[in-house]
Amino acid sequence: MRIFLDCIPCFVRQALDSARLVTDDEQIHEKVVREVLRLAADLDMSQSPPAIGRQIHRLIRKLIDNTDPYRELKQRFNRLALRLCAELEERVRTSEDPLETAVRLAIAGNIIDLGVKTSIKESDIERIIRDCLTADFDNQQVEGFRNAVSRAEKILYLADNAGEIVFDRLLIEQLPAEKVTVVVKGRPVINDATIEDADVAGLTRIVEVIDNGSDAPGTILETCSQTFRARFEDADLIVAKGQGNYETLSDADKKIFFILKAKCPVIARDLGCTVGEMILRKNKSFNGIVDLVKEVK
Amino acid sequence: MRIFLDCIPCFVRQALDSARLVTDDEQIHEKVVREVLRLAADLDMSQSPPAIGRQIHRLIRKLIDNTDPYRELKQRFNRLALRLCAELEERVRTSEDPLETAVRLAIAGNIIDLGVKTSIKESDIERIIRDCLTADFDNQQVEGFRNAVSRAEKILYLADNAGEIVFDRLLIEQLPAEKVTVVVKGRPVINDATIEDADVAGLTRIVEVIDNGSDAPGTILETCSQTFRARFEDADLIVAKGQGNYETLSDADKKIFFILKAKCPVIARDLGCTVGEMILRKNKSFNGIVDLVKEVK
Repeated sequence: MRIFLDCIPCFVRQALDSARLVTDDEQIHEKVVREVLRLAADLDMSQSPPAIGRQIHRLIRKLIDNTDPYRELKQRFNRLALRLCAELEERVRTSEDPLETAVRLAIAGNIIDLGVKTSIKESDIERIIRDCLTADFDNQQVEGFRNAVSRAEKILYLADNAGEIVFDRLLIEQLPAEKVTVVVKGRPVINDATIEDADVAGLTRIVEVIDNGSDAPGTILETCSQTFRARFEDADLIVAKGQGNYETLSDADKKIFFILKAKCPVIARDLGCTVGEMILRKNKSFNGIVDLVKEVK
Repeated sequence: MRIFLDCIPCFVRQALDSARLVTDDEQIHEKVVREVLRLAADLDMSQSPPAIGRQIHRLIRKLIDNTDPYRELKQRFNRLALRLCAELEERVRTSEDPLETAVRLAIAGNIIDLGVKTSIKESDIERIIRDCLTADFDNQQVEGFRNAVSRAEKILYLADNAGEIVFDRLLIEQLPAEKVTVVVKGRPVINDATIEDADVAGLTRIVEVIDNGSDAPGTILETCSQTFRARFEDADLIVAKGQGNYETLSDADKKIFFILKAKCPVIARDLGCTVGEMILRKNKSFNGIVDLVKEVK
């Protein structure tokens, strides 16, 4: 998905929010905003939003001289998610359809990411989880996902953020462990999950976890390591979590299921859904196969 | 009031909204956004927000080669306001306190300006008017305003937008006509009222109307005509309508009553109120006099 003009004011606001989150120095806030404006003025609009996000957050890290300014925040969100996890595991286990419940909770994890910008309350999180467990959801996509997982041999699960990755574990536990590799970012960028977060989330104990070698808040193949690209090429099912992975892989020629909450109007338009909708959706490369499975059944 | 960093993403978004409102040409939308980003990157942050608004809208008018792109929209809002006016005049006339009711309706007019960006429905307008007539309001400020008006000899009423100016007429009709001069913008900028709108609103028939010679969406004295500046200097009461006039005159050394709805968090913080609050407020230069009046009473 390419950048739309509507993304630009949003980049500037996000850069300011990020700068404020990581330092109280107002001169740095101003410097970040001015540099982002300059960068945006000459933007290559054919890029995906995370390509700009990558540049912006490199800039912020350089200006505040800190390679991982979100580290403490990520740890806080991991702890919070782990605290909620025992009860949620139980919900998945006792659910009529554990896979569907786990997908819903993985999306709940994607929403809680909002807490990075605003201060999120525990009561909000409980409400989000409740909403995600009861909201309308496309059952046909769940069946498609179930079929795709059962037919796949090499599944790459592209994780999104810290905290959220604990919720992802609930879903990953419903997948065949021997076929699954979880992918995290190669270096810190915003609150995206790195190997440290996958470890805290308990993922490294149950499945293979690799990093993609990149510091983009999405999956921009050209910025990823050779190793990751070979694995991506080789996989027969990609599970791509969150907006950043959707923005960077929506046109990729691989069989992908996207799992996310559509948080902004630009993405919602691209997905043809309303803002706030819970999305589990296979991409176009997938259609033939899934339809075939249905016909055979 | 100076620009805050939070204003900057908002400028970019407003510029895009404006460009889209006045042309469907996406190349121009992109050009406007890029130019505004460049302008903002080197911004003098000691200026008021309307100083930037003026530059942005000069740029838009130049890029689309149209000196008054909002003309049709302004006419539409004038017509809409005139259609509502007969009933509202009646409400003022039959009210227990016609001055207070007229102030409330003048603020309702300031809110309806929102319709410029989004498409506003008649049912929304009715709700806004109802809310403004019943919302909490600072009665002490109304009394201060009543006293200030009765003591003043030369009142300048600085108008804000087209459409809104019809609602202003309801308030201006409650002021002593011989003492009041209404001020509109010297040249078109966004949907700000010019002499044409004051005429359509029926103001030129009841009070003196002058223009300020400027194309800033507020009152930036340095950009105004000598004639206006002399009148401003000479006036003993300024009634300043809307956010743009607040942003440009909040620190002015004149006796000013501001009338507006606080529509954005930056202005609300500056005013020490919540977003959405209805504001009738005298400025600091005023306090001594009003307090004296109270003591004498």
